[in-house]
Amino acid sequence: MTTTYRFPVSDWLFVLKDLLRLDDRADLLGRDDLSTSDLRDLLVEGARFHEEVLAPLNVPADREGARLVDGRVRTPAGFVKAWDQYRQAGWHVLNVPADLGGGGLPSVVTLALGELRSATAQSFAMYGAFCGVAGTMIAALGEDWMRAHVVPRLIEGDWTATMCMTESHAGSDLRELRTRAVQQTDGAWLLSGAKIFISGGDHDLTENIVHIVLAKVVGDDGTVPEGLAGVGVFLVPARTLDPATGVLGGSNGVHVDSIEHKMGIEASATCALRFEDARGWRLVDQSQSGVAASMGPMFFMMNKARMGTALSGVAYAEMSYQYASAYAHERLSGRAPGRVRRPDLHADPIVAHPDVRRLLLSTRAFAEGGRALAARLAMWQLEADAGSPTAADLVKLLSPVIKAYFTDKGMQSALDCQQVLGGHGYTRDHPIEQWVRNARIGQIYEGANGIQARDLVRNRLVSNGRATTDAFFDGIDAFIAEAPRELAVLNGILDPISRAAAELRDAVAIVVQADEVDASGVAYDLLTAFGTLAVAWTWAECVRAAANVGDERFLAMKATLARIWVERELPLITALCARIRSGGGALSEPKDDWI
Amino acid sequence: MTTTYRFPVSDWLFVLKDLLRLDDRADLLGRDDLSTSDLRDLLVEGARFHEEVLAPLNVPADREGARLVDGRVRTPAGFVKAWDQYRQAGWHVLNVPADLGGGGLPSVVTLALGELRSATAQSFAMYGAFCGVAGTMIAALGEDWMRAHVVPRLIEGDWTATMCMTESHAGSDLRELRTRAVQQTDGAWLLSGAKIFISGGDHDLTENIVHIVLAKVVGDDGTVPEGLAGVGVFLVPARTLDPATGVLGGSNGVHVDSIEHKMGIEASATCALRFEDARGWRLVDQSQSGVAASMGPMFFMMNKARMGTALSGVAYAEMSYQYASAYAHERLSGRAPGRVRRPDLHADPIVAHPDVRRLLLSTRAFAEGGRALAARLAMWQLEADAGSPTAADLVKLLSPVIKAYFTDKGMQSALDCQQVLGGHGYTRDHPIEQWVRNARIGQIYEGANGIQARDLVRNRLVSNGRATTDAFFDGIDAFIAEAPRELAVLNGILDPISRAAAELRDAVAIVVQADEVDASGVAYDLLTAFGTLAVAWTWAECVRAAANVGDERFLAMKATLARIWVERELPLITALCARIRSGGGALSEPKDDWI
Repeated sequence: MTTTYRFPVSDWLFVLKDLLRLDDRADLLGRDDLSTSDLRDLLVEGARFHEEVLAPLNVPADREGARLVDGRVRTPAGFVKAWDQYRQAGWHVLNVPADLGGGGLPSVVTLALGELRSATAQSFAMYGAFCGVAGTMIAALGEDWMRAHVVPRLIEGDWTATMCMTESHAGSDLRELRTRAVQQTDGAWLLSGAKIFISGGDHDLTENIVHIVLAKVVGDDGTVPEGLAGVGVFLVPARTLDPATGVLGGSNGVHVDSIEHKMGIEASATCALRFEDARGWRLVDQSQSGVAASMGPMFFMMNKARMGTALSGVAYAEMSYQYASAYAHERLSGRAPGRVRRPDLHADPIVAHPDVRRLLLSTRAFAEGGRALAARLAMWQLEADAGSPTAADLVKLLSPVIKAYFTDKGMQSALDCQQVLGGHGYTRDHPIEQWVRNARIGQIYEGANGIQARDLVRNRLVSNGRATTDAFFDGIDAFIAEAPRELAVLNGILDPISRAAAELRDAVAIVVQADEVDASGVAYDLLTAFGTLAVAWTWAECVRAAANVGDERFLAMKATLARIWVERELPLITALCARIRSGGGALSEPKDDWI
Repeated sequence: MTTTYRFPVSDWLFVLKDLLRLDDRADLLGRDDLSTSDLRDLLVEGARFHEEVLAPLNVPADREGARLVDGRVRTPAGFVKAWDQYRQAGWHVLNVPADLGGGGLPSVVTLALGELRSATAQSFAMYGAFCGVAGTMIAALGEDWMRAHVVPRLIEGDWTATMCMTESHAGSDLRELRTRAVQQTDGAWLLSGAKIFISGGDHDLTENIVHIVLAKVVGDDGTVPEGLAGVGVFLVPARTLDPATGVLGGSNGVHVDSIEHKMGIEASATCALRFEDARGWRLVDQSQSGVAASMGPMFFMMNKARMGTALSGVAYAEMSYQYASAYAHERLSGRAPGRVRRPDLHADPIVAHPDVRRLLLSTRAFAEGGRALAARLAMWQLEADAGSPTAADLVKLLSPVIKAYFTDKGMQSALDCQQVLGGHGYTRDHPIEQWVRNARIGQIYEGANGIQARDLVRNRLVSNGRATTDAFFDGIDAFIAEAPRELAVLNGILDPISRAAAELRDAVAIVVQADEVDASGVAYDLLTAFGTLAVAWTWAECVRAAANVGDERFLAMKATLARIWVERELPLITALCARIRSGGGALSEPKDDWI
């Protein structure tokens, strides 16, 4: 059985046109020329390219892996050629403003192509993942010569970019960085230190790489301020670069010490880099002050990356669902209860077995509900950018939630769909074992999911003295109050959602009042409850929107998936809130040396 | 960081001596010479051998993998020598009766060594996994010449055995088998057909392999009865065998077509075997009739294998916990809430962070609670063998539950502990990514977990018109009624357990009344709820037993883990019962072609 993944174009069109009504939101999109048929054309062309050019490389490239040959990374067979097609078509910079040379598409639209990218070519696409975001950041915060000589190269895909944060002893804790930057008389800096886990830290796809590096800033007196105050962000090219002309020279003192051998995404080179007096330039967000100014360039990039990681969870759910569903139609085994026996078949296809349906439909309920929620969040981001404080609160609250919750659900989805294949799913005869190994990374990178939960509890529940959660719960209440009760398929799920929302609201009040130890112990439970409820709310919105599409079968399927979410996922909120009410006390009881 | 797994000898001694009081149960054990110090000596010696001889092979052997060379399987480096030491010490047949040449140890004791085996050498041990169980089965059901010439070879480990069930088109559905057996005039049979997923189907560890093969029995008229009535079990040696003398000849027509490349346990050769007029002998359970007689030899072997698979879940939880815990003590990151800052450390070890403790302590609560429950189940099996109908009901009910639930929790535990290591856990620098890949197989083989759930709902809730669940719920009620309420650490968890039991009892009544479609749709939820509650009950028993040990610190730790289970896992029963009350209707709504 070969992979037969098909990008769900029609479901994305439902989300963009029927749920979000993009046709009426030209104000937010910044352009009024995106008709439904334009969008369809874009998604269809994206699907064609990714399915035909990139997807066939996905399995063999993982088997071959990226390799380190004579100190340089060699990407798997086919990547060099594919990169050239990919960058020429501009798939890596769809979201970059047109005046910078990008596609100029609103993020809510490029989100769709982000799912497509993760599904067909996660490892491949990681090499170009920072072209657009680094280019945009440098265009906004960098110097004129960078806008002239660096930004266009990134947008064209002549160069790629990386994000160099982690060091072997310092992951989430940036205060611990040891890489040093010392300023030179000409204003440039020399960086020295070792970084690990640098995706695309080296490769053979382009002639240069722009490393965005976090390093401790050595002051004139040779000392470094304690904590984050001492950290700066630097632009460090792999090859020497003349600011006046943009001409590249030889090595800039950035060496690849090794690449990681990993559980998955083996075609993505995860590098250990060593900087030896590598020449770079500092980036500062001049519109801010203090740590916000010096760390601004990093946060600019991180916030964009988080949504893409969340989407990868949806991608793994969708592709795993499609594969396992096709298998479940072909594979015959046993007799399913409640079925009329077909005389031409000696056994039923396993799609008829209720427990197989549980695995498949739970996965699909997440894939479609998660997709819609991600798009809603992108829309709220646009509204927030346009000045809506309610939308800003929703984005603030839900950004860490969907990163962690979606990648958790993506992993579970891949595992569940692997289970549909039985022993066959455990072998490399089917791609799903690779997807399981790949999906695992989403829970770890761009801020491990436990860090997201801590961020939620520490920084996201209350903002400037305002409870950001009001925007969320009030939004649900308002939807329920306005929902058309005569729509029976919708009416049946409103009360459970309302009850779950009330229960979670009470739990939030407990967490906000709790001391930090207790709150941290139940942070993950709170995050999971928010994710579950946010998808449930989104499912209710989807059913209402589906009722207006005028396709009975489509509405029936959406209503069934909504019901599966409400009947099977929503009850977990009660369990999660019970944990929150118990508090984190039991977790803090044992002394460290008893563990 | 190297693996520093240590077999939890003292926790096993607590389970065997303090919880199960083996010293007082000589009647059940069939021997009264197993003193506490004998048991400790056995566990310590087992730990020494497995940790020193087998564990060091575990990671390199997975990297190297089993290979097919010129049509024969070559095991990874070190396996041949290790096998010789392993079989000479008799570690593969501890549970086989002494009169057959085995260790003669009761299963409740050998269970402990089963956990040790999975933790240190799962792939290696699979080659010898059927020596004891096939030897015992053949000794009980086979012919005299087999007892003379086959059984001793298996018990000595001169030969190994396999279980050949699956064919490429037929996994759980044995009615679909195509391998044929045709009887010869001398009473022997010739088998032809292709089998897949045969663990240890070939190797270079011993001179011969005894395949126990399921095949369709061709009648004198050339036809095969429909369904299971046509299936027989056959003993088919890899090399020709003279029944009169036991002397081996050349190839018996059993060919290795390929070996699987898998997500994990790569050192275990998973073979596709082709039988071409391979000469074998039929095995029948003469004490039964009809299908029970012809399939009896298979069920004899399957029931023993299921408990071992369940234990592998405990093993992966324990080893993952130990590794992640050691890492969490060494790794420094950030400042944990509620901690006094140690001036000598620039950051706290991550074991101080509440969310890391959540991952570690949840895993440990399963490892210790699951271990104790498995041992209780083995004890109930002994009581059932001695005639207790209550114990028989508990074994009947919980056998599929612990196979599925323990392997699910083992997988989750490995994933959770991998998460503690952050990005480092995703690399092959640490063995935990291998344990994640290995742990996954437990959910699939020996009957995929969905099949276990279906078995539970169809065959295990009611037995001979009697509700087997009464033994379970009445057992919990009796424990709670008799529990010493003055023991505060115990008293606090009794009410939640009692409430959860009442809720699950009501849910069982719904499932028993439901039609088969609805019941099958919620079967997995019911199984998970039983597993969760069975461990909770066991934790309460453990706390009561720990109170009698006379070690305050030990009791405090057991009480904390019990509280974590009750506060964090038990609430899931409410969610699972809510699903059961909703029924499986939403899952059966969509037509097959909508999925």
